[in-house]
Amino acid sequence: MTAPFDSIAIVGLGLIGSSLARAIRQNLPDTRIIGYDRSPDVCARADAIGLCDTYHAQFGAELAEAQMVILCVPVGAMSAAAHAMAPHLAPDAVISDVGSCKASVLAALRSALPGATIVPAHPVAGTENSGPEAGFASLFKGRWCILTPDDQADAAACARVADFWRALGAEVETMDAAHHDLVLAVTSHLPHLIAYTIVGTASDLEGVTQSEVIKYSAGGFRDFTRIAASDPVMWRDVFLSNKEAVLEMLQRFSEDLSALQRAIRWDKGDELEELFTRTRTIRRSIIEQGQDDAKPDFGREHK
Amino acid sequence: MTAPFDSIAIVGLGLIGSSLARAIRQNLPDTRIIGYDRSPDVCARADAIGLCDTYHAQFGAELAEAQMVILCVPVGAMSAAAHAMAPHLAPDAVISDVGSCKASVLAALRSALPGATIVPAHPVAGTENSGPEAGFASLFKGRWCILTPDDQADAAACARVADFWRALGAEVETMDAAHHDLVLAVTSHLPHLIAYTIVGTASDLEGVTQSEVIKYSAGGFRDFTRIAASDPVMWRDVFLSNKEAVLEMLQRFSEDLSALQRAIRWDKGDELEELFTRTRTIRRSIIEQGQDDAKPDFGREHK
Repeated sequence: MTAPFDSIAIVGLGLIGSSLARAIRQNLPDTRIIGYDRSPDVCARADAIGLCDTYHAQFGAELAEAQMVILCVPVGAMSAAAHAMAPHLAPDAVISDVGSCKASVLAALRSALPGATIVPAHPVAGTENSGPEAGFASLFKGRWCILTPDDQADAAACARVADFWRALGAEVETMDAAHHDLVLAVTSHLPHLIAYTIVGTASDLEGVTQSEVIKYSAGGFRDFTRIAASDPVMWRDVFLSNKEAVLEMLQRFSEDLSALQRAIRWDKGDELEELFTRTRTIRRSIIEQGQDDAKPDFGREHK
Repeated sequence: MTAPFDSIAIVGLGLIGSSLARAIRQNLPDTRIIGYDRSPDVCARADAIGLCDTYHAQFGAELAEAQMVILCVPVGAMSAAAHAMAPHLAPDAVISDVGSCKASVLAALRSALPGATIVPAHPVAGTENSGPEAGFASLFKGRWCILTPDDQADAAACARVADFWRALGAEVETMDAAHHDLVLAVTSHLPHLIAYTIVGTASDLEGVTQSEVIKYSAGGFRDFTRIAASDPVMWRDVFLSNKEAVLEMLQRFSEDLSALQRAIRWDKGDELEELFTRTRTIRRSIIEQGQDDAKPDFGREHK
């Protein structure tokens, strides 16, 4: 296939930005990659592993060569990054991003870049690690990438962005930003919030020491610590940027937790068993649809 | 080493019982294994894969040959199983179990088997799968097994049970049953309760379809579904048997969640970032202590 873009600027060379660079190298080897990170140290580390063609800690004339610009910074930093790059953009460049909330990012980009061709995107993929060394080329393979263009969006640009993600191995879906934010509040933001909470709760007990919590974490707790090891700034921004949907989901979760608490207090074993049987079938569907490993224990090694 | 027991009865041939049988075969090949399961179907399936030396759906004279009996049934079924086996036990047999709550099980065993040599144990290991086919020999390797003998317990019997678990590759720790129940309420019971809750919440929304929840589960949700796919009856019994500690931990968790909810509502980004940074270090300790895989994303395959 013809590469959808001859040259792409990646702004922010953390886990997602650096995975994008590697995935482009592997799947679209003729595409030129212009790398940006406001940290000169990150630029140097990215250079050391050969992620991009050029590296810049500030936007300059070279940005005008980019046919697509992908913002891979925390969602709270999108507005500042967009403002900083505005004077240097090619007028027909396609502007995209990888942020986990879409309504707030779309608003920030529209405000900073009036008249620009904007196609917001969210690849639903990641790991708990951060930084340019943490990325890998296959991160997006078989994962969904959600595009959330608004009515002003250019249909041809949307098609090119979709082609781009498909070239990296992702499956592409389109929905409006508000619905995206509601869906992801359930499938991603609430799970992270809860994982952060329980890890905090466990580390603040007086009757149980932190070393006991760590020692006996294989009983389930360790699964939560993986998610709770995700990037603190990225997640701070997600919760603040998708506040309304997150608070709504949190409210529902709390109600359901109270109902379960009550069932335990009043020995309603049947209610517990009914819920626990229902939740098992959802796991099965996730595996059937290729969204998780069928191997027990996530395929963790048992030597 | 000399095998700590010449013959062992395993009562309940599910995930843990069948893993025990395999681990005994591999590490203590001279030990005779007498298999029990009240389901003749499970006995037949265990026989088909050669887990034990003999299989019985009811207790009989053969039980008198067992030097150790390990109860691997849901904690709510311990009392009935102990009563049923009482008439057939050798007087000097060591009685142990693998239950996830210890105070209630200890009380049930003491009451059903007055004068017996009882050494309760809890191997902190498992997967989300159930049944005799789900077990594997290395499940306990490098994991902790907690013994919770009371003051009546025989020191020599405790040492033999500890030797037995070490022979299967586990590390052994001893603590009193009440403290065990508090520690495990945090590291295992609360995580399971929360995982069951969030999976339930996500499947009951009107604005987001269940198929969307499944499709975009790689954003974090899928991690919770693994735990929420654990055995419904086993977990129903755990919550009801360790009610007090579970409700106490749940209360603390709810308070912490409310604090986080408030921080989001009032845009307290610093509070969020501080917590999210703190939780990251706990993950690091768990990996350093060999209680989880250092590979990103639990080592899930990314092809």
